[in-house]
Amino acid sequence: MDLAAIQSGLDTIWVVLTAAMILLMEGGFALLEAGFVRQKNAVSIIMKVFVDIAFGALIFFFFGFGLMYGKDFYGLIGTTGFIMGGDLSHIQLTITHDTYWLFQCAFVIAVISIVSGAVAERINFHAYILFTVAMTGFIYPIAGHWVWSAGGWLGGLGMIDFAGSATIHALGGFAALAAAILIGPRIGKFSESGAANIVPPSNLPLASVGAFILWFGWFGFNSGSTLSATNGSIGHIAVTTMLAAASGGATCILFTMIRYRKADPPMVINGSLAGLVGITAGCAFVSDLAAILIGAVCGIAMVFATEFLESRRIDDPVGAFAVHGVSGSLGALAVGLFAQPELTEGIGQGYSGLFYGGGFQLLGVQALGLVVIIIWGFSMTWIAFKLINKMVPIRVSRDEELVGLDVGIHGVPAYSQEHDFIELKQLKNR
Amino acid sequence: MDLAAIQSGLDTIWVVLTAAMILLMEGGFALLEAGFVRQKNAVSIIMKVFVDIAFGALIFFFFGFGLMYGKDFYGLIGTTGFIMGGDLSHIQLTITHDTYWLFQCAFVIAVISIVSGAVAERINFHAYILFTVAMTGFIYPIAGHWVWSAGGWLGGLGMIDFAGSATIHALGGFAALAAAILIGPRIGKFSESGAANIVPPSNLPLASVGAFILWFGWFGFNSGSTLSATNGSIGHIAVTTMLAAASGGATCILFTMIRYRKADPPMVINGSLAGLVGITAGCAFVSDLAAILIGAVCGIAMVFATEFLESRRIDDPVGAFAVHGVSGSLGALAVGLFAQPELTEGIGQGYSGLFYGGGFQLLGVQALGLVVIIIWGFSMTWIAFKLINKMVPIRVSRDEELVGLDVGIHGVPAYSQEHDFIELKQLKNR
Amino acid sequence: MDLAAIQSGLDTIWVVLTAAMILLMEGGFALLEAGFVRQKNAVSIIMKVFVDIAFGALIFFFFGFGLMYGKDFYGLIGTTGFIMGGDLSHIQLTITHDTYWLFQCAFVIAVISIVSGAVAERINFHAYILFTVAMTGFIYPIAGHWVWSAGGWLGGLGMIDFAGSATIHALGGFAALAAAILIGPRIGKFSESGAANIVPPSNLPLASVGAFILWFGWFGFNSGSTLSATNGSIGHIAVTTMLAAASGGATCILFTMIRYRKADPPMVINGSLAGLVGITAGCAFVSDLAAILIGAVCGIAMVFATEFLESRRIDDPVGAFAVHGVSGSLGALAVGLFAQPELTEGIGQGYSGLFYGGGFQLLGVQALGLVVIIIWGFSMTWIAFKLINKMVPIRVSRDEELVGLDVGIHGVPAYSQEHDFIELKQLKNR
Repeated sequence: MDLAAIQSGLDTIWVVLTAAMILLMEGGFALLEAGFVRQKNAVSIIMKVFVDIAFGALIFFFFGFGLMYGKDFYGLIGTTGFIMGGDLSHIQLTITHDTYWLFQCAFVIAVISIVSGAVAERINFHAYILFTVAMTGFIYPIAGHWVWSAGGWLGGLGMIDFAGSATIHALGGFAALAAAILIGPRIGKFSESGAANIVPPSNLPLASVGAFILWFGWFGFNSGSTLSATNGSIGHIAVTTMLAAASGGATCILFTMIRYRKADPPMVINGSLAGLVGITAGCAFVSDLAAILIGAVCGIAMVFATEFLESRRIDDPVGAFAVHGVSGSLGALAVGLFAQPELTEGIGQGYSGLFYGGGFQLLGVQALGLVVIIIWGFSMTWIAFKLINKMVPIRVSRDEELVGLDVGIHGVPAYSQEHDFIELKQLKNR
Repeated sequence: MDLAAIQSGLDTIWVVLTAAMILLMEGGFALLEAGFVRQKNAVSIIMKVFVDIAFGALIFFFFGFGLMYGKDFYGLIGTTGFIMGGDLSHIQLTITHDTYWLFQCAFVIAVISIVSGAVAERINFHAYILFTVAMTGFIYPIAGHWVWSAGGWLGGLGMIDFAGSATIHALGGFAALAAAILIGPRIGKFSESGAANIVPPSNLPLASVGAFILWFGWFGFNSGSTLSATNGSIGHIAVTTMLAAASGGATCILFTMIRYRKADPPMVINGSLAGLVGITAGCAFVSDLAAILIGAVCGIAMVFATEFLESRRIDDPVGAFAVHGVSGSLGALAVGLFAQPELTEGIGQGYSGLFYGGGFQLLGVQALGLVVIIIWGFSMTWIAFKLINKMVPIRVSRDEELVGLDVGIHGVPAYSQEHDFIELKQLKNR
Repeated sequence: MDLAAIQSGLDTIWVVLTAAMILLMEGGFALLEAGFVRQKNAVSIIMKVFVDIAFGALIFFFFGFGLMYGKDFYGLIGTTGFIMGGDLSHIQLTITHDTYWLFQCAFVIAVISIVSGAVAERINFHAYILFTVAMTGFIYPIAGHWVWSAGGWLGGLGMIDFAGSATIHALGGFAALAAAILIGPRIGKFSESGAANIVPPSNLPLASVGAFILWFGWFGFNSGSTLSATNGSIGHIAVTTMLAAASGGATCILFTMIRYRKADPPMVINGSLAGLVGITAGCAFVSDLAAILIGAVCGIAMVFATEFLESRRIDDPVGAFAVHGVSGSLGALAVGLFAQPELTEGIGQGYSGLFYGGGFQLLGVQALGLVVIIIWGFSMTWIAFKLINKMVPIRVSRDEELVGLDVGIHGVPAYSQEHDFIELKQLKNR
């Protein structure tokens, strides 16, 4: 056994294990979202997560990966790598191309899962499947190509987005916003006067453990993005990830105790996640203290963003935009402020943020890239749903919504306390 | 620090981490099964999972491991390694023998957990403990010896079962079938006319997250079975595992939308698992596209198998036979069809399935091995329960079944909304 | 890539992955505790876990780590390393200092989480935050310095506490006991006559899966404590961890079947955890059979300790003292009995327990260290709560307790079956 084989094996298990951790985040999304929505829609949101992971993986295998990481065409799009075929020689890694696919697959599934929360409790299931195809097969892969592939034009400009505050979270969050606006609020969410009503989460313990699973998976998400176990940044990445999450959570505990006179559980859950989203771009490149600051700012911004959406009568049942769209954007910009040259050496000549002598150069590139990505994510989602709406209605019927999607669409309630059996013909429609 | 020490350390952490992931699957089984059964039996099924992991580990330590991996006696049985003692020099690995034990222990616990679901809601707890001893101390170790140990006769014939579609899942699934037949259906499951009634799962969000945890653990199950982190197949194994699971889930979403006019949540959950079970034998040896095909076929077969059991008035509350027995069998046979010589090089001279020029040779061996294993699993389980029934009744009393095993056997309900305390003497019998 | 870089990378991913596993244990604690307490307090206990992880991480970053692992001052206290600054050259590892911080951070969060269970359902939230600061910023770091830091006086005497039966669990358990005594029993827990009433756990499936997640995390807790992936003990540690947990669980199944005439689910859950706590000190240094014995003794001791506390009218809702305090103590002492010289070679000249020819030397040191730590943990917690009580009442009002802390303090119930929205002004107090 020689050193190269050891290196390759070490990197492979690192990527496989972290990919598995990221894929476990689907369990986290399922719990978080099922806990946040009303009980009558808990199964339907989980079925969307199954669509994310099942269709997302297949579509990304057949189409998305090639568009994202295939041989570059003018910085805009990939052209090889569909079904893992064609010339992928430009991807030079110690791991195999299909191992690389697995890791990227875990990412794309996270993107679509972000959107699932914003359209919860009212989207037509067929329409959701079609949108999943669009997002995982086209919308995200194109944006991802621009930032992360060899030859992508945003990456070429110098945009830094280590594990995807912009490319994953801001994209997903603004796609979620477009979808939430287009599909409209849930019946009853806003009263006649325009005031927002609140829905008590159906199962906060489940939502909380969803957050802890996501937190766990995030170590894979951020640290695993090194794609190599001998990358010297891994420890630092894990530390900044931890500190930003803790800071987002602690800040939201204190801030909601001041603002609402109680530590607000859903806000604390989302505050931790906001910290994680915010550090995702810069985890390798900012200091520990910057990570704490980023987490705190993202936590507070998430609270305000949640309130802002409600004031605009936009209904985002799990806070997908506030957590992913806003914190993702802040995280991408934060790299332009806090990136330190000695921490960015590994990826080039050493970039510097505004506060570390780099002037507005990096910040400008980050802002440009961010704006491009959120416009892309928002507008393509808008277009996709408009097109889908010509095929199937994107919203369930009023009756289905009132009775709940679990029984209305999937024919089964989330929770059943019946002790007896039900005659088959009552439930199943053949 | 020399290269050999690095290699050994690398392989050790790989096996320990993947073993831990497999053991976490017990949490997945607990959630899946507690979510699928009626609320009044949710605790009792989890207590069975505790029996699996607690008694299973100890019995396998004292007896099972030696019978399975001890020094071979005519291809039939192991004779050393009880309590990790005796001559184990034929096990030549970079990891220690007890690390190897841990990984194998995680496997045996999975086998018995498969059976637990099929006998849910009606088995006597004492009888279940006794059967756990039989399965983990004898039935599975013997079959495992035939296939996986140095000198085992089925392995010697050339049977390939990478991580155990046959040896784990088909064995467990057919044992589950035998147990389900012998113990009989739950009271009320079948109406007078013979029609099957359905029981709405008590907690689908829990069942779903159980599936996601199982999915996560499966990466450990399949990839970890290399037992070495420098095995070149690890990435490929993880990819085929992912694709087959996604394919099983996606297929069941679409297929149940056609067949039942709704995406059926329990079927989608079990469809993903069926894909995982099906790829377990061939994960290292079949192509990505074959994995997708295997997942799809196993998903659909699972639906038909579920319906078939109900039509035969066999009551398997969580679909253990349909998921593990049927998909496990299909997966073992699929190796005989899809194995590619360049992928199997690592384990010998390069095997070929029927579709890759190998003729019926490998397929025949796989079929033979599969038949032997399922006959062994079914008949030994039948015999074991017949013997156990002479010591303790294998089924709870009618009253206990009607009131539910949680209160009836374990003295406590799964969920309690009582806000007040209960006087001790009311609940505890000393 | 040279061998040293491989070694460092390998050790880094090992520590990062195991730290992530330990941090996932917070999800386990949240589920375990939310499942054990009454439904009206399920959110409030989870909010405490968020305090543990969020405030714990930050406080340990700013203060605790320096006091624990900074440059030693007369064996008593660390003096550098605050905010990861100052001279840490005495920490000689293949991983970076901040990676080391992350692993230690996961430990401190576990300590405070132990206490959270004992004060559940009645502690004031502000007081809990203040105590978290005290525990993670001072009480635990000082004790940890004595045992684990270079120069610590207990470690210097030869005390062995591999992953912290004493330093983590006995400390946390006795702190929990002090807190439980000081804050007093829940209203209604003890009837006028002095007899203990029992509260049926609100959600046993959640509590069970919490235990499985903790079990998973424990592989990271114990094996990861090697801090190096090439440590030859890793496999053995994982095996003893598994066997002790299985033994604790199996013993409690059998023992409660005898004592209570039923396999008692909460006791079985806590029995497994007791086995895990008990093996934490000696996992690297005792034999497989000793691990089984330790697990069994800890399981039974946990049952008696639970009964003893109730007989003394001390109310510990989740059994924090019985699991962590008692088993942690037994585990620390067990090292003095069962440590084997060939297993302890790696950490010095080879220590021997009483049963392996070492006489009372090691046992005496272990007993001394244990007594010091539990006195420290108990008395400092007592003092801390007395001081906190001068700032804010440590107990909620009678009305808040009766209505439950979820609605009373956090303004939201854990579970809501409402299908309709609630007007915002009804729930939020601005």
